[in-house]
This record gives sequence, C-alpha cells and structure tokens, in this order.
Amino acid sequence: MTDRLQEVLTDVDAELRESADWGHVATYIPELARVPLHQLAIAVATADGRLITAGDADTRFSIQSVSKVFALALALGRSGDQLWTRVGREPSGSAFNSIVQLEYERGIPRNPFINAGAIVTTDEILGGRPPREALAELLTFVRTAAGDDAIYINEAVATSEKAHGHRNAALANFLYACGNLKNPPEMTLGTYFHQCAIEMTAKQLALAGRFLIAAPGMPRLVSKARLRRLCAVMLTCGHYDASGDFAFRVGLPGKSGVGGGILAIVPGQASVAVWSPGLNANGNSKLGTEAMERVAARMDWSVF
Amino acid sequence: MTDRLQEVLTDVDAELRESADWGHVATYIPELARVPLHQLAIAVATADGRLITAGDADTRFSIQSVSKVFALALALGRSGDQLWTRVGREPSGSAFNSIVQLEYERGIPRNPFINAGAIVTTDEILGGRPPREALAELLTFVRTAAGDDAIYINEAVATSEKAHGHRNAALANFLYACGNLKNPPEMTLGTYFHQCAIEMTAKQLALAGRFLIAAPGMPRLVSKARLRRLCAVMLTCGHYDASGDFAFRVGLPGKSGVGGGILAIVPGQASVAVWSPGLNANGNSKLGTEAMERVAARMDWSVF
Amino acid sequence: MTDRLQEVLTDVDAELRESADWGHVATYIPELARVPLHQLAIAVATADGRLITAGDADTRFSIQSVSKVFALALALGRSGDQLWTRVGREPSGSAFNSIVQLEYERGIPRNPFINAGAIVTTDEILGGRPPREALAELLTFVRTAAGDDAIYINEAVATSEKAHGHRNAALANFLYACGNLKNPPEMTLGTYFHQCAIEMTAKQLALAGRFLIAAPGMPRLVSKARLRRLCAVMLTCGHYDASGDFAFRVGLPGKSGVGGGILAIVPGQASVAVWSPGLNANGNSKLGTEAMERVAARMDWSVF
Amino acid sequence: MTDRLQEVLTDVDAELRESADWGHVATYIPELARVPLHQLAIAVATADGRLITAGDADTRFSIQSVSKVFALALALGRSGDQLWTRVGREPSGSAFNSIVQLEYERGIPRNPFINAGAIVTTDEILGGRPPREALAELLTFVRTAAGDDAIYINEAVATSEKAHGHRNAALANFLYACGNLKNPPEMTLGTYFHQCAIEMTAKQLALAGRFLIAAPGMPRLVSKARLRRLCAVMLTCGHYDASGDFAFRVGLPGKSGVGGGILAIVPGQASVAVWSPGLNANGNSKLGTEAMERVAARMDWSVF
Repeated sequence: MTDRLQEVLTDVDAELRESADWGHVATYIPELARVPLHQLAIAVATADGRLITAGDADTRFSIQSVSKVFALALALGRSGDQLWTRVGREPSGSAFNSIVQLEYERGIPRNPFINAGAIVTTDEILGGRPPREALAELLTFVRTAAGDDAIYINEAVATSEKAHGHRNAALANFLYACGNLKNPPEMTLGTYFHQCAIEMTAKQLALAGRFLIAAPGMPRLVSKARLRRLCAVMLTCGHYDASGDFAFRVGLPGKSGVGGGILAIVPGQASVAVWSPGLNANGNSKLGTEAMERVAARMDWSVF
Repeated sequence: MTDRLQEVLTDVDAELRESADWGHVATYIPELARVPLHQLAIAVATADGRLITAGDADTRFSIQSVSKVFALALALGRSGDQLWTRVGREPSGSAFNSIVQLEYERGIPRNPFINAGAIVTTDEILGGRPPREALAELLTFVRTAAGDDAIYINEAVATSEKAHGHRNAALANFLYACGNLKNPPEMTLGTYFHQCAIEMTAKQLALAGRFLIAAPGMPRLVSKARLRRLCAVMLTCGHYDASGDFAFRVGLPGKSGVGGGILAIVPGQASVAVWSPGLNANGNSKLGTEAMERVAARMDWSVF
Repeated sequence: MTDRLQEVLTDVDAELRESADWGHVATYIPELARVPLHQLAIAVATADGRLITAGDADTRFSIQSVSKVFALALALGRSGDQLWTRVGREPSGSAFNSIVQLEYERGIPRNPFINAGAIVTTDEILGGRPPREALAELLTFVRTAAGDDAIYINEAVATSEKAHGHRNAALANFLYACGNLKNPPEMTLGTYFHQCAIEMTAKQLALAGRFLIAAPGMPRLVSKARLRRLCAVMLTCGHYDASGDFAFRVGLPGKSGVGGGILAIVPGQASVAVWSPGLNANGNSKLGTEAMERVAARMDWSVF
Repeated sequence: MTDRLQEVLTDVDAELRESADWGHVATYIPELARVPLHQLAIAVATADGRLITAGDADTRFSIQSVSKVFALALALGRSGDQLWTRVGREPSGSAFNSIVQLEYERGIPRNPFINAGAIVTTDEILGGRPPREALAELLTFVRTAAGDDAIYINEAVATSEKAHGHRNAALANFLYACGNLKNPPEMTLGTYFHQCAIEMTAKQLALAGRFLIAAPGMPRLVSKARLRRLCAVMLTCGHYDASGDFAFRVGLPGKSGVGGGILAIVPGQASVAVWSPGLNANGNSKLGTEAMERVAARMDWSVF
C-alpha cells in the first residue's frame, strides 16, 4: 500500500496546486489573515507505522477546531459519559457559532464540535483547576498521541482570538446563564482560545490522529469502544452544517478547523491530515476537502 | 462467522424477550395501533449468502420510513445527482415531520429521510407518470433487491395514512407552494402513503438490504460509489433527530420506520433487519434499537 | 371638520397621483394580477354621519384580509372569549403566511390576523354549518355594518384562491393535525377563500368600519368593550410584521389586505378606508399606507 | 374628574389588597429578591396638574425596564431617526431576553424595549462619552421630566445586575460581534445596568411620565410627533411577548419593569404609574397589571 499511497499523495498534491481558486483565508484575526494562501499539505500515518506526505507537511498551522477532537477525548477520559449530560451528540443543522439552538434547548449544546459544545467540553477539562494546568494536560495528551513533544500553543493567536472573540463570549455567557458552565465565562473562554491556538504540522497532526485508528501498535489513549464513538461524533458532527456533505463525498470521520486543517480517520488503516489555509463557503478548507476526497477515492478508503 | 452469528441472534432475542418495557406501538392510524406489542424479529443476510434469523422473522410488518432507502436509491437511479438540487443531504437537527426548516430554507428539505425530503423523492420517482406505474417500479426494485416477489403494499394502511395524514399534507402543500413539487400534492402524497405501506418480513427486509453491502455476489442495483453515498446519508440522517445517537451507540448506517422496523448495513459483511413494533420516545423501535446495538457490539460490527 | 376633511382628502389624492412608484399588484392569482395599477381611493365615514371621499371610491376591489376584522367580530359574537383558547392575540413578529410559529406553539396561531389565525377564526364561524350558511351570516354582518346590501363575494376570485392556495392549505392541514380545526381542512379553507373574496368599494368599506368607531349613532354590532379590544388587536397585529411600523407612522388601528385595501379607525371620530392595488415590500398597499399616513397627520388623527 | 379618580384609586387599592395571590418577586438578584411582596402603589398625574395616589406611592422601587422609555426618548433626541437603523420598532413575539431573533436578523434587535434593543439604545446614548456623563444626562432627563431632583441610581442594584447579568452579557457580546455596538460590551453593559437601577416612587414615576401626555402645561421634552411615536412603540412592544395582551386588556401604551413598576399613558389626560413587586408568569407586575386594568376600565380610559 505504501508505494501506491505515496504516488496518490504526490499526484493529488500536484493536481491541486494547479487550482485556480484556493479559497480565502480566515480574516477574523490578523494572525490567520496573514497566512500565505498557496500552501497545501497532505500527511498520512498508517496502521503499519509509516508516515507518508506530500506538499508543505512540515509547516506549522493553527489547528483551531481540530483541537476539539483531542479535547473531547480528554474530557471523556476525565469525566466519562456524564459529559453527555452537559452536551448532546446530535448534528446541529446549524452554523458552528449559532446561538439559536442553545436558547431553544436551554443551554445544552447539540454536540461537542460546534463552538458552544466545545466550550462546555473545555469547561469540563478545566474542572476548577487553573487554566495553565488544564492546558498542560491537553498538550501532554496531544504530544503523547503524536509521539512528539515539539507541539506548542501560539500565544499571539490565543490573545488575538480573545480580542476578537465576542461571538464566543456571547455563547459562553449564555451557557453560564443557563447553568451549563462551571467556571467563570472568561476563564473557560481563555482556556478555549488557548486550546484552539495549538499549532502543528500536517505530519504531527496525522501522527496525533493515530490513536483513533483502532489497530494494533497505535497509541492507546482511549478504549476501542470510545474511539469508535469519537469517530461516530466526527462523522455526524465534524464539519458543522456541512457534515452530511463530507460524509457523502469523503465517507470518513473527520474534523476541520478554520485554520485550514482537517483530520480524518480510516478505521483500522490510517490517520489522514490535510492542510490548506484557504476556506470554502462553509468555513472548511477548500483544497483540503478536495484533497481528502481525492485521496479517499483513489485509495478506496471509506467507512461504507 | 455463521455459527457465532446464530448464537448471538438467539441470545439477543432471548435476552430482550425478558424486557419489562417494550415501548408503545404507533397509534396515529388504527392499522398500526392494533399490532400486538410483544413481537421481536432479527434477521441478518450475510455477504457469503446466508440468512440467519431469530424471533418473529416471518411476520409481515409495515416498513414505513424504511421505504425511503429504496425510494432514494430508485430516484437517484432515475434522475442522478440532480435530485440533490431539490433536497439536501445534511442532518436536520429536527423531528421527522418538522416544517420549520422548510420555511427557513425555502422549500428545500434538509435530507431525503425526513418526511418532507421523502415526499420530494417520491415526487421525483413519480415524474409525471400515473402513481400506479411509479409504485410498480418501486415494488419491482424492492422485490429484485430481496429476490422475492411476495412483497406487497397494504392498501388498508395506505388508505388510513391518507385519512390521518394532515401533517404530511401540510408538508406537501408547503413544498408545492415553494415550487418544489412537480405533481399535484394529492397525487404525490397518495403515492408516498402507498410507498410507506409496503409490508415485509424481517427476512425479506434483510435480503432487500443486501444491495447496500458492497460485496461480490450481492444484487447490483446501484454502483459501488452510490451505495457508499446512500450509506453515508443513512448514517447521518437515518434516525431523524436521533441519528447521532444511533451512530454513537450502534456505529452502522441505518434507517428506521414507525412500524418498528430498522435496516442497518455492515459494509462488506451483512445487511441486518430488526423489528419490534413498540417505539421509544424518538419514534424508533425500542427493542429493535437495543437489538441492533447488542448484535453489533457482540459481532464487533461498526464502520469505525 | 367636514370641509377641512374634504380638502385634505382631495389634496392627498392629488399629491399621490403624482407618484412615480405605485408599487406592484399581487400576482399570485390572475384575478388580482390583472387589476389596473394606477387606482387610488380614500373614503372617510365620520361619527357625525358624513361620508367624504376622493379618487376611485366607487370602484369595487377584493378586500382580502380586511375581511378578517369582520370575521373576528362575528366569531367573538358567536363564541365569546373562548375563541381565545384557539388563537392568541399577540403580534407574531412573522410574515402573514408563516408556519414556523405554529409548529413551535403547537398549532395555536399567534393572532387572528395572520393567515393561520384567520383560518381558525373562520373555522369557528363555520361551526359545523354548511359553508353557505356561515358565509351568508358573514355577508349579512358586513352589509348591516355598511348599511348596504350590494356587497358580494366574487366567485372567480374564491375559485382562483383555492387553485393557488397551497400555502394556506399547508396551514390548514397543519392546524387540523394539531387538533385546532373543527371542520375538514378543505371545508374551512373553502369558506376562508370565499370570505377573502368579498368585494367592496372604498365607500362601502369606510361605512362598514363605522361599528368600530365607538360613537353614538354608529351601527351597534358589538359592545363598546369589545370594539375597543378589536381595535387593540388591529393596532398590534393588523399589518403582520409591519404592524409596529404602521402604529409608529400612522398611529391608528388598521387592517390591510393584499388587494390593496386598508381600513383604519379613529376612535370616536371616523372610519377610514383607502385603496390602491399596488403593494410595498411588506405586502401592504403602497400608496394606501402613504395616504393613510398623510390624512392622519393633517387631520391630527392618532390614538396617542 | 379628580374626585372620581381618587375614589377609583382608593377602591382599586383596597380591592387588590384582598388578593390571595400577589405573584412572586424577581429573584435573579438579591436586591430585588428581598423586596417585601405585599406592597402596592398607584399614582396618577393628570393633564390638569393634579397628582392623585393610593397605597405605597412614596416607596422607592427599582424601575428597571421602565427606564427604557426615558432612554429611548433621550436617544432619539440625541441621534434622531438614524437610531432606527440600529434597532427596529416591531413587536418581537419573543421573550425579553431572547437572542434567537438577533441571530436570524443579524444583530438588529426588533425594538428598543426588549433587552437587546435597550442595550443598543444605551450604547447610542453613550456615544463615546464616559458612562458617568451619559448616566448624568439620563438622570437629568428623568429628573426634569418628574420635576424632582431626588431621583437616584442604586449602586448596589447596578453592581448586582452586573454580577448576575450573563444573559445580557451574551446579548451585548453578540451585538458587538454583529457590529451593532459602538462601545466595548462591558462599558455599554455597565451603563445599561446603572440605567436599570434607577429608583423612583410611584409618585415620581407618574410625574416623570407627563411628558408623554401631549397636553398643554406638561413638560415639553420631546415634540408632539415624537411622543406619539414613543407611545406607539410602548403600545406594540412595551410588555415583551405580552404586549398584545396588555393592549387588549388595558388599551393604553405602557412599559413594565421587572421591579414591579408599570408606566402607562392616557393621551391628553394622564400619566399612570403602578407598582407591586410580585410578578406574573410573563414577568410583569401581577397586581400592577390588574390595577392598571381596573383603573382604566372605571375611568373609561383607552386609546381606542
């Protein structure tokens, strides 16, 4: 498989670099707005221990909402299934930052991958500790998953998120008003913004995703039953209101971030990370999604 | 696998028959309301050609919304991807019969498995033909899939659905007003009610689901690419606003019906039909869902 | 007052006839679509028994939703305050034909002047009688109010409404499904379409509105307490989601119709009817609203 | 009128003091929660210069949302009709603190009397000045209206509102994220909480409302055209999602506050203040609303 895989990645990278339209980088904070548009990375960590890449796979990027996968795994590890009393696991049918559903459903976010649900998840991880401790535990989780200690939080990004995070502040204050935050909104939000500001390369992200593969030799950070469930939530909720479309086109559980990264899992076989900072209309990486679709199709990867 | 599978089905059937709570049968039409509650069937058609069952697997039941899987496959076969201009493929986050989303999104149903989307799908199949012809084609599709001609529409059920189908009539009239029905609402609705009134046994339903398995020797009614996509829509949208929960607990693409039937697919391996007429609060079969979860867990069946 | 009033009406009529933009006639049925655009009528029936007019005050037009005022008065007369268990009296904040609120509030329309609430009101008037009888009673009410028997229903309009009334059919079926229609949807709808198809001239409409003036010598069709309440509902709900704007600009209780008519009441003083078939973006008569605003301002008419 | 009025107030006060159910005081901040329940005040300032009262008319209470009337008058005086580009004037059909409509309508609150709209109004008054200055101007406005300088802000209430104001913080942050706050959310919110913490007696409130009467001899703080429009907004939007009911039952423009106060205007005749701290299910004063209804009915006061 390895040679074929390298060939596929090289081909897909080469094809997509010809694209006329690379989408638009996120502009809500200067740190993301100034990322050069024409970058593309694909990295695959396989169940047999290889790491195959193409393109800018050694360039760090802000993983943003992809961090929600790690945070959810960590929160479930800490709190078990009682987390599900604070957040649902149904697709929301709404945009990532919608507050409408919160009001109708009295402060219980639909799932842990929309912003409101991720804020609750971070609040669970925080659990009364100083943010520094909670973030240290999360970083340790991610570094262990990736087998690489050179993974950091970009403070400038975290600071900038906070300065422009009024919509998230609306969500956190609303959650608090509904009794679904345990820590003060500012503290949970500050932690959340730091979590989103984790930076990785595509290589590191592919490696960090291996714990979700469910194959021997992969890092065992959660039980097999739980990793399947994490994948289920990724498939149904991982791309906000384009989750159905990603499942339809790619057929793999995945999670995207506004920094242009996407992590997808081929159960039993591989962890796939793509990155291209230009976004499509849904706020997911334009060429990243395209790369994921082409790689999956040519490798015949699909959960179905 | 076969012996182990038979053992699992027998065990699960025996265990669940001890249940204190069998849920409640649907009561909106007398034909469903009078179905005896304490019935349970499990049937599995495997990729290697076996049919394994437990319980009341030879009892006919009304497949209701499970018919939407066959109708969608048929509509895509007739019309191709242009069907997706009339109906989306995103989870709705709403109840099966919600009309709210239709108004906000101007008559384009979120997906083909909520009632509004299924009515549009049926309208596409109808395509100007007399309902009798469209229904004949649908029955032929189902019979071919099952390899069994003894599958029929229950006219009494269809008639009763019509007499009590005012909420569906609201949906159809709304769709028509939005320009998203090609046939008169009464005609499309009449066809839809007949489609929902198809009756099968669990055995027949498991056999009819084989075309979605993606394995050699299975009936080839749609291309492999398309059957994967059908499964993706089943996984993200197949259980209305409990789709995320079914994916989380069972981990298989599935479609439920208010008659108490559920069809789920284990890609490459099996088509699983369960039936028990008592429903849970979400309108899905109570013991059927439980049976599906237990069988999947013990057989280690999951797409993840 | 009379001379001054005649002068004002003549002036306003003359000014508005210079308008470059007369709005657009309703096009959803041919009978309304073909009404010539450049028509304008103003008619005022005063508490001292005069009838002052300007423009096309003898031309018949379809009163459409203005009929909801008469229907509500009649329904309250027949059923008393128990009508309010079936329909609210709060502004809806939504378009006239919205179905969203119905679903969220389980089939109780917000008020009797949005379509859903008007259908319930008509259903109450119907009360098990043949539609012909109910419509006869309504016509008698209107004719008595106007003191003029030459007021009729336009059958062609009623028939055409039915042929294009799928959105109203959605509302009626939804109401029925929620248990808030007592008669079959088709019967209530048929009656509703006939009610909306009543035709009057602006003169007749101004006269028919006198029973709401609350002054001696006016037709006494409802108690003073009730006519005040009718006016309250007109002020808060009479112009759908532009009710606040009409109250703000005109300051009088009023009810508009898609045929271009508006009836407004100056408590203790006058009943004002305007008509111009071109509508603004909110579906209210463009020049009619403008005429109402100018006449009220110059006559210093306001409830505030 | 005066003798009759005194008699009515005395009677209504006496009758209502027999009530078995006084409602429940607001509990979201301790300062309101500890207000003794069994208090009732009625005060009427008439166009002929009298001030008639009954009950606890010299007891100070927190006017809370009644302050929105004064803030709106002041904001319109400062900014004119361009305020209406930032906030609508339609009834919302929603609860006072709903955020749903804000998301659907992109940060433009429906009207200045729901919380979101009042925050925008306060933000307009603030206009870049230090909060102290804006609050001083507002206090001056209220004192001038009342002809009484002994009107103050209760700092303890303002501080407590801030400590428990997460839902309002959600609204303010959402508005800011939509570009509809000119000042930092914390600054506008702080000003808003102080505005709501103004305290008055029923006597002072009745006097402060005289500028809305539109009669000679009343304080002329806004033009007649504008005070009519203020009354229109009070009538259609003054009681949140019970505005229609207040118009229906009382027939006067009014504005309620969660402290149990209500201000209503009888155009040309009187300004009526009632206060009783127990609230009904809608969050309006239970006995206050009842008192308003009885006084209006017996005095034959209604705008209709």
